Amino acid sequence: MNPTPSYALLASTWTRMHHFGHLQSIASWDQAANMPPKGNEARALAMAEVAALLHRMRTDPLLSEHLQRAEQEPLSEFERANLREMHRQWLQANALPESLVQRRQLATSRCEHAWRSQRPANDWTGFVENFRSVLAVGREEAELLSQQSGLRKYDALMDRFEPGMRCAQLDQVFGEVRSWLPAMIRRVRDKQSREQTITPVGPFPVALQRALCEQVMRLLGFDFDAGRLDVSTHPFCGGVPEDVRMTTRFREDDFMGSLMGTVHETGHGRYEQNLPRQWLGQPVAEARSMALHESQSLSFEMQLGSHPGFLQQLSPLLKAAFGEQAAFETSNLIRLMTRVKPGLIRVDADEVTYPAHVILRYEIERPLVEGEIQIEDVPALWDSKMQELLGVDSRGNFKDGAMQDVHWPEALFGYFPCYSLGAMYAAQWFAAMRRAMPELDTQLGQGQLQAVFDWLQTNIWSQASRWTTDELARRASGEVLNPAHFKAHLESRYF
Amino acid sequence: MNPTPSYALLASTWTRMHHFGHLQSIASWDQAANMPPKGNEARALAMAEVAALLHRMRTDPLLSEHLQRAEQEPLSEFERANLREMHRQWLQANALPESLVQRRQLATSRCEHAWRSQRPANDWTGFVENFRSVLAVGREEAELLSQQSGLRKYDALMDRFEPGMRCAQLDQVFGEVRSWLPAMIRRVRDKQSREQTITPVGPFPVALQRALCEQVMRLLGFDFDAGRLDVSTHPFCGGVPEDVRMTTRFREDDFMGSLMGTVHETGHGRYEQNLPRQWLGQPVAEARSMALHESQSLSFEMQLGSHPGFLQQLSPLLKAAFGEQAAFETSNLIRLMTRVKPGLIRVDADEVTYPAHVILRYEIERPLVEGEIQIEDVPALWDSKMQELLGVDSRGNFKDGAMQDVHWPEALFGYFPCYSLGAMYAAQWFAAMRRAMPELDTQLGQGQLQAVFDWLQTNIWSQASRWTTDELARRASGEVLNPAHFKAHLESRYF
Repeated sequence: MNPTPSYALLASTWTRMHHFGHLQSIASWDQAANMPPKGNEARALAMAEVAALLHRMRTDPLLSEHLQRAEQEPLSEFERANLREMHRQWLQANALPESLVQRRQLATSRCEHAWRSQRPANDWTGFVENFRSVLAVGREEAELLSQQSGLRKYDALMDRFEPGMRCAQLDQVFGEVRSWLPAMIRRVRDKQSREQTITPVGPFPVALQRALCEQVMRLLGFDFDAGRLDVSTHPFCGGVPEDVRMTTRFREDDFMGSLMGTVHETGHGRYEQNLPRQWLGQPVAEARSMALHESQSLSFEMQLGSHPGFLQQLSPLLKAAFGEQAAFETSNLIRLMTRVKPGLIRVDADEVTYPAHVILRYEIERPLVEGEIQIEDVPALWDSKMQELLGVDSRGNFKDGAMQDVHWPEALFGYFPCYSLGAMYAAQWFAAMRRAMPELDTQLGQGQLQAVFDWLQTNIWSQASRWTTDELARRASGEVLNPAHFKAHLESRYF
Repeated sequence: MNPTPSYALLASTWTRMHHFGHLQSIASWDQAANMPPKGNEARALAMAEVAALLHRMRTDPLLSEHLQRAEQEPLSEFERANLREMHRQWLQANALPESLVQRRQLATSRCEHAWRSQRPANDWTGFVENFRSVLAVGREEAELLSQQSGLRKYDALMDRFEPGMRCAQLDQVFGEVRSWLPAMIRRVRDKQSREQTITPVGPFPVALQRALCEQVMRLLGFDFDAGRLDVSTHPFCGGVPEDVRMTTRFREDDFMGSLMGTVHETGHGRYEQNLPRQWLGQPVAEARSMALHESQSLSFEMQLGSHPGFLQQLSPLLKAAFGEQAAFETSNLIRLMTRVKPGLIRVDADEVTYPAHVILRYEIERPLVEGEIQIEDVPALWDSKMQELLGVDSRGNFKDGAMQDVHWPEALFGYFPCYSLGAMYAAQWFAAMRRAMPELDTQLGQGQLQAVFDWLQTNIWSQASRWTTDELARRASGEVLNPAHFKAHLESRYF
């Protein structure tokens, strides 16, 4: 009898890890959407336990041996891609000792939980107390990942979310955006200052907003037999591909935030729901990267959600939900959705000012996690960069400043750049679609969205992690990341 | 250096299992309260994985060695009680091979999930298809547990929920109840046929019912910072002591079902929320048994919830929620809450007819799981016993017959008797309270419930699994289970 091939053993190990990851994802969604405050301590301990178990599984010395042996086994192209992704996950996991994984889980659970009440209270001092441990863990991770990979610290952190992306490339891309963005914002603002926009008049009852969000999710193809929409402080798309848990948040005086947030998360949700079922449980079936994920949410929110064709479909739904208002006419909706206004909050930002928020975070968290600056330096840096990039005064407003995102409490250093890379990829996908389907905008104008979903299904969703990001981009659009499409998109939409 | 004592090693193993159990509990609540249908297959696999892990931990050969060694170590009385409970859990787990644990999880997940749509469709044939695997697993468990313990099969199953309870005692207790119950039901029905009862007039909007349930839970001392109320097909109290997840179900035309169901589950919830915090994670900190658990829910629902003093407090809340109705006067509420009416549904049954539902299930599931009868025999047996015990015709109505409970899909054979044992213990606790506090009924009449909570806290909640059930009962009430208190309670309330 031959021994079980190493590839098969690896695949079954990853399937088991996938099952534990399922419980982790659901418990983590629950933590944000349901859990009462006194449940936090026990939950943090439980999450740390399963994180430690997964870490032990990923660092089992036998894995290393099987990963080497599997390289020599006869594998299909797809299996070889899977092995590549296993190896990548293995490398990352093995840079970190179990004690660090547990400390990370405890520190982030505690910080994130406290942040939920500290943020509304603008309690920066209280936040810093917990965030100090989170940053310490983040720096330790950066150091260890860097030692193992030979990458600089921030690159090593970023590689977890965006394999292959480096500060060198990012500095170039963001540097370029920095060179035209402030001027473009001023030009758009100037142009729009002469436009009349009618603001919808509330209140917009939460129950009606929720029903509207679900209706729009259906329009965008979300499968409610394989997912839900709930409420949390910071909207996210969690759960598992078979059971996607999206969240949003509602305000009685504004429905646009929750509606467009939902459109955004629906992009993430459809990517997850349409990952190739036959390989679920294996790394090759996972979403390619965070920028690719964001390219889906922004394809939905920005490329599609602000498209005149889509807004024409939205108009009657708004009237049905909240009654007739001149604000709900398509022409006004277009102006509303493309209104550019520098503000404090990243997730509320329009697509033109959004990159400024990301560049600011990148320029703070890179030196912060690489040890060049300290937590105490953050507020002043934040304020000066907000002023410089967006002309906005953020002094003293920590809750809408450095405390506004869940990423730092969760030690997700190196994640923020993915948002703007995602916007660039989304523009690149739609440019490719228009080349392949010159009639696309006409179709969207007639309310036919299926061609977009089909293109994304074929080129992105079904491909999962089969190719490197560069190869995926080449196969989908004929070229690797090219930020020119993003600039062209903004120029075509705003001028 | 001395080696780590065996007791300490065992305690830390149980703490780790407690953490995994936390995720199991939350995921299991989610499965019933939130999960969309297409999520089921992946969830079943994830639940099977963690069940298998816990089974491996409980059957680690090292445990046996440490359990023996710990017996020789110097332990406090409390630690010794903990060791006794560890040993009990270890014995049960080690009777079952991992493959059986996994098959159990898969079979019950699938059956329970399908049951959610099969029950409303009255699809007995479809249900039997899945239930056959569940029963096969249940019989296998009974056989293995019986071999190990030397108990008869049903005793071995029942011992998982109600340590120490045996068919011999149960046949005696239930036999006695059978001897006076049908006559008592007739006497009460005859007496009540001359009473005027006003039925509340709906509809009762779900949002108002939900708010009322939460208000009553607060009145009953439920801590919403450590728990929630949600909706599921079959109400239950799940989650973990630090984060209790109660569920109910609402009907627009009837608020009594959800309200009294909520009062019932609140009894379970408070027991869990008040288990001794300093030992959470250890078996000694777990609820003593299922009958003891049910004695808490029935102390809340039947002893307290139908008490004139409590109904006097409820009256103004009902008027505030649903408007003035003559039906909401205290005197009418008392008649409503003590109205005896034989019916099809166990969970809707009044406290007088309830034992008949339990006796019926016991008389069917005992021979079913011991192999004396087959699934095909169940409908006819069900129908004839419903007729005999309650004079109710259940023919052809599977959804309100053998399919009405979640227990069989979940292979919880041996559980049903605990419900009626719980009613008997609840009556016994209130008899003890009245002996200790002759002014109790006067206090309740003035809306002071605290004395009841304090007694339960001191005698039941804080004691957890410190004593055997008999010892706990003796310490709390001066005697072991004595069903005479239950009969006396019914006679005093209904005649």
